[in-house]
Amino acid sequence: MRCVSAWSPAGLSGIFETHIVEDPLLTGARGAGLALKKGVTVTACESEQQGVKISISDGGKIIPTVSTVAKKLLSMFPGQLGVEIYVDVSVPIGGGLGTSGASALATALAMGRLLGLRLSYLDLAKIAHVAEVECKTGLGTVSGLVVGGVVIVVRPGAPGNDLVDRLLFDKDMKAIIGFFGSRSKPEILSSARLPLIDTVGKRLIDELIHERSLEKLLEVSKRFSLETGLVTESVKRAFRALEEAGIPYAGQTQIGDAVFTLVHDEQVDRAVGVLNNLKAKTIVSEVSWEPARLV
Amino acid sequence: MRCVSAWSPAGLSGIFETHIVEDPLLTGARGAGLALKKGVTVTACESEQQGVKISISDGGKIIPTVSTVAKKLLSMFPGQLGVEIYVDVSVPIGGGLGTSGASALATALAMGRLLGLRLSYLDLAKIAHVAEVECKTGLGTVSGLVVGGVVIVVRPGAPGNDLVDRLLFDKDMKAIIGFFGSRSKPEILSSARLPLIDTVGKRLIDELIHERSLEKLLEVSKRFSLETGLVTESVKRAFRALEEAGIPYAGQTQIGDAVFTLVHDEQVDRAVGVLNNLKAKTIVSEVSWEPARLV
Repeated sequence: MRCVSAWSPAGLSGIFETHIVEDPLLTGARGAGLALKKGVTVTACESEQQGVKISISDGGKIIPTVSTVAKKLLSMFPGQLGVEIYVDVSVPIGGGLGTSGASALATALAMGRLLGLRLSYLDLAKIAHVAEVECKTGLGTVSGLVVGGVVIVVRPGAPGNDLVDRLLFDKDMKAIIGFFGSRSKPEILSSARLPLIDTVGKRLIDELIHERSLEKLLEVSKRFSLETGLVTESVKRAFRALEEAGIPYAGQTQIGDAVFTLVHDEQVDRAVGVLNNLKAKTIVSEVSWEPARLV
Repeated sequence: MRCVSAWSPAGLSGIFETHIVEDPLLTGARGAGLALKKGVTVTACESEQQGVKISISDGGKIIPTVSTVAKKLLSMFPGQLGVEIYVDVSVPIGGGLGTSGASALATALAMGRLLGLRLSYLDLAKIAHVAEVECKTGLGTVSGLVVGGVVIVVRPGAPGNDLVDRLLFDKDMKAIIGFFGSRSKPEILSSARLPLIDTVGKRLIDELIHERSLEKLLEVSKRFSLETGLVTESVKRAFRALEEAGIPYAGQTQIGDAVFTLVHDEQVDRAVGVLNNLKAKTIVSEVSWEPARLV
């Protein structure tokens, strides 16, 4: 059975401004966040059974997005073939860690190669982006995962139509994420609060773009979660506890019930201690300069 | 003495079409090539001596470009400071392996962080790109090194203005480069042959963009070097010897006296043997999915 695997960083964003128009290739979000070394590995294998079969290591919430990508690519294959897809997710799903976008992108890369489709990286990333938009699981995530690093999506849209900048960070810095629970993204993205969220997001992203620094990214992320009311009680407590421990720069993963920060090595234990005390599931990861790719 | 280091992949291109206009941010080249895991490390250190001092591990040809970047950034620093820059190049200089662009980009990243300038990755990459254009050492190299992988520069220009796509390649593939000697780039880029070169380049890049595959990249690279007359006698011999050994897909590094190919693991020894027989300095490297970054 021939198989191809692809990996994608997980990705979190601390701030966003949606940009939803008729064309899904121009739909997206401005925003900022991180690509993480912890992520998702997707293995796509030829199968004798027609159609697409999907198995996911942790929960099933992202199946619709992965399935949309897989069916789209299979429909472009000129012969008769079935595909089995195994998604191995090493971070929690539903916590604003970009698992749907990462899985969609890795699925597109693995299947593009497995089927020998003459599609480039951007062709495949566009298919993953459109699946995210259609399934309402994300808007700007794929843009960041195609680039890697600490990213600012300056112009929204599918990869190739977007514009992504990055921020420098010291080599000893680690991302710390405290995950409190799952949260439904489609609900918030369809809610009446969206115009307010976008107004706040636009103002703060403009501030960040004016002063492109890591501290500013974390500062506007925190203010975004507070000013939009997207902040959860758990994250609010985490902001306070981190501040008391001398870590004032932190944000909320959008749209999740999780807090994140980026600290130097000597502060890692302290940040983890604070989050463990709050009963968060705590993840420590380097930032990934590598984009999603075949492995 | 405070120091900051940055790394950049080396980069080669097999084909190009220059796009030279008045604005250096819109000047660049369309083309295609590889970012390599072998590359350049630049360390920038604060110094008590005013101005910029540069040391390079292998030859001095790329000093003007590095110096242009360093002086530009130092001029943006609000205080009085001197900088010492150490460039450690692990591939030959002058062979079309992008060492000037890689050194310029790594210098920009290291100095941007050392000086605490509030410049983003794209801001710094633009400075490196403009230095390459001004010093006539390259046109589209920085575009590829900012992205990583097997790249196609679809729209020319400085990073942020350009559009770069990538091709997928199997994980066991290695880039093999046979380096025959140094070659002067400014001379060719100012020559009367440039209109012919660009006509051939445009036609073949359009072919590649129409059929985005690795084989096509190598095929148009070889045809480009032959049809433009840029091919050297050594590279012509290498094409023939590789073909006889069952490796028909190879190109010439532009603008260098070196041949390159991308082969599966089981063909690496054969390709290296052929190039060693021709007395080439032979380099084996993985393709780097990582862009230039702080280390």
